[in-house]
Amino acid sequence: MLTLFYAPNTCALASHIALEEAGADYALRRIDFRAAEQTKPDYLAINPKARVPALQTPRGILTETPAILAFIAQSFPAAGLAPLGDPFAFATLQAFNAYLCATVHVAHAHRMRGYRWTDDSLAIAAMQKKVPETVGNGFAIIEREMLMGPWVMGEVYTIADPYLFTLAQWLEADGVDPNAFPRVADHRERMRERPAVRKALTEELAA
Amino acid sequence: MLTLFYAPNTCALASHIALEEAGADYALRRIDFRAAEQTKPDYLAINPKARVPALQTPRGILTETPAILAFIAQSFPAAGLAPLGDPFAFATLQAFNAYLCATVHVAHAHRMRGYRWTDDSLAIAAMQKKVPETVGNGFAIIEREMLMGPWVMGEVYTIADPYLFTLAQWLEADGVDPNAFPRVADHRERMRERPAVRKALTEELAA
Repeated sequence: MLTLFYAPNTCALASHIALEEAGADYALRRIDFRAAEQTKPDYLAINPKARVPALQTPRGILTETPAILAFIAQSFPAAGLAPLGDPFAFATLQAFNAYLCATVHVAHAHRMRGYRWTDDSLAIAAMQKKVPETVGNGFAIIEREMLMGPWVMGEVYTIADPYLFTLAQWLEADGVDPNAFPRVADHRERMRERPAVRKALTEELAA
Repeated sequence: MLTLFYAPNTCALASHIALEEAGADYALRRIDFRAAEQTKPDYLAINPKARVPALQTPRGILTETPAILAFIAQSFPAAGLAPLGDPFAFATLQAFNAYLCATVHVAHAHRMRGYRWTDDSLAIAAMQKKVPETVGNGFAIIEREMLMGPWVMGEVYTIADPYLFTLAQWLEADGVDPNAFPRVADHRERMRERPAVRKALTEELAA
């Protein structure tokens, strides 16, 4: 049995959708960010980094979206969520996920979580101003160079798709016009039609 | 044949060491950051993200350190650089690498590359001020929670070790006292004694 620790409107959605697509048997455990539950001792015992997602497994806890996504793909190989037998294709997929994790998500985080990198409120405001540009630059490279289409890796749906979808959900709030990236926008629309995505979004909104 | 595009004093060192540890047949191609070579058309054709490392393979180019490291481990399984047959252990290793990539390296980057996230020089200075704290916090969690010892994953040396070593090389310049993290400092010393590490450092300094 797997338990996903998540909060709504976070990148935990990617792992949530992937568990659903894999047909995994899993439970959800919502962490209340408004009550700063992620910083309390009970949750720090789960994830000392005070972040979501965390995935409790019979072997222990896993953290970090790219690692959890690859774990789901490897643990449920029948779902075909990653090219597991092809190191080059797997690395291409992982490079996509690493770019989302370390560049695009980090650019986005400068809008709401600038306090991670400075204590100066004017500097936080200055960071926020550039978010539309930095997030936009990230999606421009995805649109032009990385999204093979119709899915991220081409004809086959993989763990990269829910991750891209999760970050693409934030475009408007980040001040980026999705119409500037028609292939990303089309991907987002097609993702919204998938039963696994609908179920995950409904669960996160209902809790 | 593999070709690693790198620049000295960057995270490309991790992939360089891993290629060496794997016994790979590879060439090095140095990118001159002082001449902004990474932003020129020739290199953008290799990596449109204008970053190192990039690894040219017979199948195409790979980018992003965590993806390249896993590729090296999977391509040279005899070197035993990752627990390839154990999805949980592999995910634990990947979570470590993702933390270095998206949190610790990003904290570090706010010292020299704050312009990525703001155009305001005062804000860039404000970011720089917090780097000792944010990088220090990252290494505190590594010291306390993540570095199993003697190697990152315990008894077995893996692709996480050169990656940790690479970022630990920057501690002093980031204003962090390595003595605050004795297990990390000890790991760094033992890494420096490895022939693969000596060879990689010598090659990067000599070029």
